[in-house]
Amino acid sequence: MADKITPRAEDYSAWYLDVIREAQLAENSPVRGCMVIRPYGYRLWEAVRDGLDRRFKATGHENAYFPLFIPMSFIQKEAEHVEGFAPELAVVTIGGGKELEEPLVVRPTSETIIGHTYSRWIQSYRDLPVLINQWANVVRWEIRTRPFLRTMEFLWQEGHTAHATAEEAVEETLRMLDVYADFAINDAAIPVIKGLKSEREKFAGAVNSYAIEAMMGNGWALQAGTSHYLGANFAKAFDIKFLDPNNEMQYCHTTSWGVSTRMVGAVIMAHGDDQGLRLPPVMAPIQVVVVPIWRTEDERPGVLELANRVTATLAGAGLRVKLDDRADQTPGFKFNDWEMRGVPARVEIGPRDVKQNAVVLARRDRVGKEGKLFGVPVDGVVERVQELLREIQANLLAQATAYRDANTHRVSSYDEFKRVLDEQGGFLRVHWAGTSEDEARIQEETKATLRCLPLDAPEGEGACFLTGQKTSRIAIFARAY
Amino acid sequence: MADKITPRAEDYSAWYLDVIREAQLAENSPVRGCMVIRPYGYRLWEAVRDGLDRRFKATGHENAYFPLFIPMSFIQKEAEHVEGFAPELAVVTIGGGKELEEPLVVRPTSETIIGHTYSRWIQSYRDLPVLINQWANVVRWEIRTRPFLRTMEFLWQEGHTAHATAEEAVEETLRMLDVYADFAINDAAIPVIKGLKSEREKFAGAVNSYAIEAMMGNGWALQAGTSHYLGANFAKAFDIKFLDPNNEMQYCHTTSWGVSTRMVGAVIMAHGDDQGLRLPPVMAPIQVVVVPIWRTEDERPGVLELANRVTATLAGAGLRVKLDDRADQTPGFKFNDWEMRGVPARVEIGPRDVKQNAVVLARRDRVGKEGKLFGVPVDGVVERVQELLREIQANLLAQATAYRDANTHRVSSYDEFKRVLDEQGGFLRVHWAGTSEDEARIQEETKATLRCLPLDAPEGEGACFLTGQKTSRIAIFARAY
Repeated sequence: MADKITPRAEDYSAWYLDVIREAQLAENSPVRGCMVIRPYGYRLWEAVRDGLDRRFKATGHENAYFPLFIPMSFIQKEAEHVEGFAPELAVVTIGGGKELEEPLVVRPTSETIIGHTYSRWIQSYRDLPVLINQWANVVRWEIRTRPFLRTMEFLWQEGHTAHATAEEAVEETLRMLDVYADFAINDAAIPVIKGLKSEREKFAGAVNSYAIEAMMGNGWALQAGTSHYLGANFAKAFDIKFLDPNNEMQYCHTTSWGVSTRMVGAVIMAHGDDQGLRLPPVMAPIQVVVVPIWRTEDERPGVLELANRVTATLAGAGLRVKLDDRADQTPGFKFNDWEMRGVPARVEIGPRDVKQNAVVLARRDRVGKEGKLFGVPVDGVVERVQELLREIQANLLAQATAYRDANTHRVSSYDEFKRVLDEQGGFLRVHWAGTSEDEARIQEETKATLRCLPLDAPEGEGACFLTGQKTSRIAIFARAY
Repeated sequence: MADKITPRAEDYSAWYLDVIREAQLAENSPVRGCMVIRPYGYRLWEAVRDGLDRRFKATGHENAYFPLFIPMSFIQKEAEHVEGFAPELAVVTIGGGKELEEPLVVRPTSETIIGHTYSRWIQSYRDLPVLINQWANVVRWEIRTRPFLRTMEFLWQEGHTAHATAEEAVEETLRMLDVYADFAINDAAIPVIKGLKSEREKFAGAVNSYAIEAMMGNGWALQAGTSHYLGANFAKAFDIKFLDPNNEMQYCHTTSWGVSTRMVGAVIMAHGDDQGLRLPPVMAPIQVVVVPIWRTEDERPGVLELANRVTATLAGAGLRVKLDDRADQTPGFKFNDWEMRGVPARVEIGPRDVKQNAVVLARRDRVGKEGKLFGVPVDGVVERVQELLREIQANLLAQATAYRDANTHRVSSYDEFKRVLDEQGGFLRVHWAGTSEDEARIQEETKATLRCLPLDAPEGEGACFLTGQKTSRIAIFARAY
């Protein structure tokens, strides 16, 4: 419970691990770097999956499934790709008791095997575009892992599309970036920033990588989704060609884009407080918990009857509701328990409520008496709870936006950069004309990385904080997960 | 199209592969034994997944996720389990560029790693039962593979539950067998037989294995789902113990149960005919295709207008409908194409229909004129199509049941067994008092295996067809996938 959760200000990393443990979201497994996702955590992933899958289908994508294993030779075909992924590979060398002639890589991402497949599917411009997504597990041999944020195996979706022209492929790349932002903002209540990754931070094999960057509760950044324009790089490596309407052979332009179980970590850290999780109602596995309260045995039947009735009414309206009628726990314990698990709304029902045919409504985003609504008539409880959930959803987004904005600083010199980063943290939003080498030096000296070049940058021209050069390019630097 | 599909009577295996290729369900991948599941095939898998997942949740189960990798030492802890799976393992020996100290097995099934986890979760009888399911990919190093039916990597769900008593665990095992049968019969329209597997055929590590057995279009059997009572075998190997209400330490009794992408193969082979797929409406990715028909250009706008309107009306009612308005294909081509892909119902709209504000309805399960309904008024088209889909769903089940019953033979001697098997194939339903050695001999001599001891066996006592011994035990033998 709350006393088992380290306050954020004391140790944010410990807070994160405590919340994951106490809310039973995930735990370490006997395989180093791999986690067990427990049912409550998996329901958050299901909310991510369902929210994205619906949007993918609405934008014309279909799901398919490609092999877990990739021949080692495939990984080696795109030069930057192999350089980026070679150190992170898990390799199967024995199958059915025998040494394999060609080792099989456990997919770290599927551009190569999907590229190979597309080269067989695509012959003519009439076969384009190919718009496919895959829900899958992938493996990257990470040294330092942290549940949801960075694990050796993780769950994700990877979209892979092929187009006739660069324009169409770039359009697709940005469309999916918008889809991710839409999910993050409207479902996860996280005010992400859409931006271009720097050359140094882009995907191994991409022409351009875009990302949505979110601010966590300690001011650090988290890349919550990426969308890559791959140009003809993989098309050339895997011979993905088509005959255009003039009967000329052309290379396809391809994209890939992914969101992973990281998003669950983002939800935990964007909204959580010292009492534990705070879940956006759109994603919450349990949106409303009903807690019956009685002192004497003769109060009990009436309270439970009303609690059951209200639970059934809310469930009947399609709300995800749970009645906590445990007899061996006090109401106070239950309040704390469900607050820690982030349930957005609570219905309290005591003997006085039974007399009035009313309930008390409490909200997770405003703990204590000031967040409570007393004497809510049972007759209109569904509408009132639905309204409250909408308010909470909006309020979590508003709070996270206000927090992000309050922790976004503009600096105009490297000294100021270092001082603000150390004293206040958060996002440093700067004019930027530096090089990849400059980025590397900044990271070495400050641990901050260039998160993105935001697409929405109304600042106009100014002087680069590092080089003094005039530029209209804006960058966000931050320490990041 | 149909002329690219080998007739079933000519070569059933070729027919199966032709249908999978022409309907674009799946294809071989560059990794031996692994397939690429194409979008249309993946939608069938999504129908399996959604149909089962709903039933799992309705029976109190939650989803979770456990690691892809299992330490080799875990696999070795349950004696029969390791013996069963050792020859089929894919083993990761290199991670992050280094040789691993302990090799990691790519999960062939997850009893061991989940057993290890449950031993940490379960302390008291209050923690029981644990009712968890996992959707995952698994790998078994198969030599002879066939798309959907037997592939090196496949997708499945594996349920893993832990209980305080043997009675409860057996009850769960049979409950999930019922869930599988309910899905197979009501969603997939496959009249499966529930039965106990013989000692020889049971899961490596189980006390009892149960299965649903289906008959394919060539009379062969296909095991479409299994549910295992594991006794305390895995509980002892992984120390899954609890303090009972009397404060005594007890081993749990566990179960596991799974359905895989095999189910998609079952749907193909249980219903398909020489024209291709026939999909049960509950599972069909496209339930209704709308085909506009015009001869002259001035007929075209009216026909397309009505086709669009009818498509929107059907989609608005929640039906999965597709308008095929391709200008470069004839109606006849489209009819054949969608019939080959198994779409249950077709709406045809020509100039005469426009005049009458009516449509023609055709059904995949009765090809040709006798299956058509002419002059169906547009006003009631939703209800009429919904009714037709229900009829088709029921008819596919009835046809498959009639086929199974017509191809189930009772024999009373081994000579008769061999003769009927060779001449007629199908299921041989017999009184059975033989041993595992007898089973092995029958398989060697006839290629038939003991599929199951059906739970529903009203035959009463009789003489074993092989040994002549009196017994009331009934067995089904068949050649099987």
